[in-house]
Amino acid sequence: MMEKKPTILVTNDDGMFAPGIQRLIRIAQSLGQVYVVAPDSPQSGQGHAVTLSEPLRLRKVNIMDGVEAYECNGTPVDCVKLAKNVLYPDKPIDLCVSGINHGSNASINILYSGTMSAAMEASLEGINSIGFSFLNYSFEADMDAALPYVREIMDFVLRHGLKGCRLLNVNIPDMDGGSIKGIKVCRQSHGSWVEEFQQGIDPRGEPYYWLTGRFVARDASEDTDIWALKNGFISVVPSRYDLTDDEAIPHLKHLNRHSETEA
Amino acid sequence: MMEKKPTILVTNDDGMFAPGIQRLIRIAQSLGQVYVVAPDSPQSGQGHAVTLSEPLRLRKVNIMDGVEAYECNGTPVDCVKLAKNVLYPDKPIDLCVSGINHGSNASINILYSGTMSAAMEASLEGINSIGFSFLNYSFEADMDAALPYVREIMDFVLRHGLKGCRLLNVNIPDMDGGSIKGIKVCRQSHGSWVEEFQQGIDPRGEPYYWLTGRFVARDASEDTDIWALKNGFISVVPSRYDLTDDEAIPHLKHLNRHSETEA
Repeated sequence: MMEKKPTILVTNDDGMFAPGIQRLIRIAQSLGQVYVVAPDSPQSGQGHAVTLSEPLRLRKVNIMDGVEAYECNGTPVDCVKLAKNVLYPDKPIDLCVSGINHGSNASINILYSGTMSAAMEASLEGINSIGFSFLNYSFEADMDAALPYVREIMDFVLRHGLKGCRLLNVNIPDMDGGSIKGIKVCRQSHGSWVEEFQQGIDPRGEPYYWLTGRFVARDASEDTDIWALKNGFISVVPSRYDLTDDEAIPHLKHLNRHSETEA
Repeated sequence: MMEKKPTILVTNDDGMFAPGIQRLIRIAQSLGQVYVVAPDSPQSGQGHAVTLSEPLRLRKVNIMDGVEAYECNGTPVDCVKLAKNVLYPDKPIDLCVSGINHGSNASINILYSGTMSAAMEASLEGINSIGFSFLNYSFEADMDAALPYVREIMDFVLRHGLKGCRLLNVNIPDMDGGSIKGIKVCRQSHGSWVEEFQQGIDPRGEPYYWLTGRFVARDASEDTDIWALKNGFISVVPSRYDLTDDEAIPHLKHLNRHSETEA
């Protein structure tokens, strides 16, 4: 048992009043002292964007008894930066949780996801972080079956840490509790988006392109998140912000060179 | 020698009329057939953001003789998606280059960078991609000394490929040609941003927070990009979109579990 109530920062990318963050706050509250900094509007697909060209605002909101919550006009990453630098610069944060996102962030979708980028930003600051996503985009979806698992994973990380890793990408299949097979630690699958644009002509006669598309898994072997989710497991991918492709370094050694002017 | 002129897609995050992309287009033109799709406004710090809630537009622009160029109202990643899906769906692209960015994208700045995210998006599509960044934010900075190296690295990748990797993060110190020591293949350094917000009160009396800050290297050992740049080398970090922290998987095996309901 931890002696002191842990401090938990909660954020998301669907905005402060999405059902997913409300559930996550409630679970966090059962495990520690909760601080919430979340966007004041939906920020899906914002990736690791930060707001450089305009000022950010913070507004205190009442979201739940005993919970200090601020909404912010920026991106999910901005929210974490404001929490760490402006709101709680002297408060050690034991865990950052982001979500529960409405929609999958498995496979390469971690790259586009504001939910995961917020968690990654906290991980850059040395904070153990978890992004949670539920495989149903609807705000009306019933995610009750997911909640005990969300709590279990948070509790695990609070008790045991992440063993050198700092970030988990957790995705939860949209199934009833009895059907969920368990939890599987796995790797990020490769996939891609196809048929990506709806094309049309606007009322002024100008063409437009609207991002849409269909995700296609390119690799669904048994150690991937896509396999886990397809087979009824909750996928947990330990993830990193160091993007170095270590294996490629020796292969590219022919690019190394010292200019002739060197002593 | 390649038999057929290679096809090169050029993009950036500083916008179509930044000096850096103009230089990059000229170099690309000396190596192959060039297509440009770039943002119509500065998109620094956009990370891997995509535009979901509004339509995108493309506008053909005259930028250089013999070069087909479009500007787009979206993010750098949107530009690459439009190039691949709408403008050139049937054209094999041999290389995507992004930049030359005005300012460093070394270390963790790869995560925030629209320049690097555009190149990463192309790498997701299986295209060899390079992001180039120059360590001076000013549009007036003289980057002439950098240009032969940019050409050399592009030429290397066109001739030899990337040996299983798909993405290079190239950063170039702001030095005269005689002082640049050479090229060094290295790994992404760890660092962080501090003093991140300018705080003020706006004309209406409301507080605001404006993102700023100072980058601090947390790791500058000899195999890192930060070391290379500090010591006069051009840094080349082979990078990947698979964020799995492979080493952490065995450590987290205690999270694995099958639910009791499983057969």
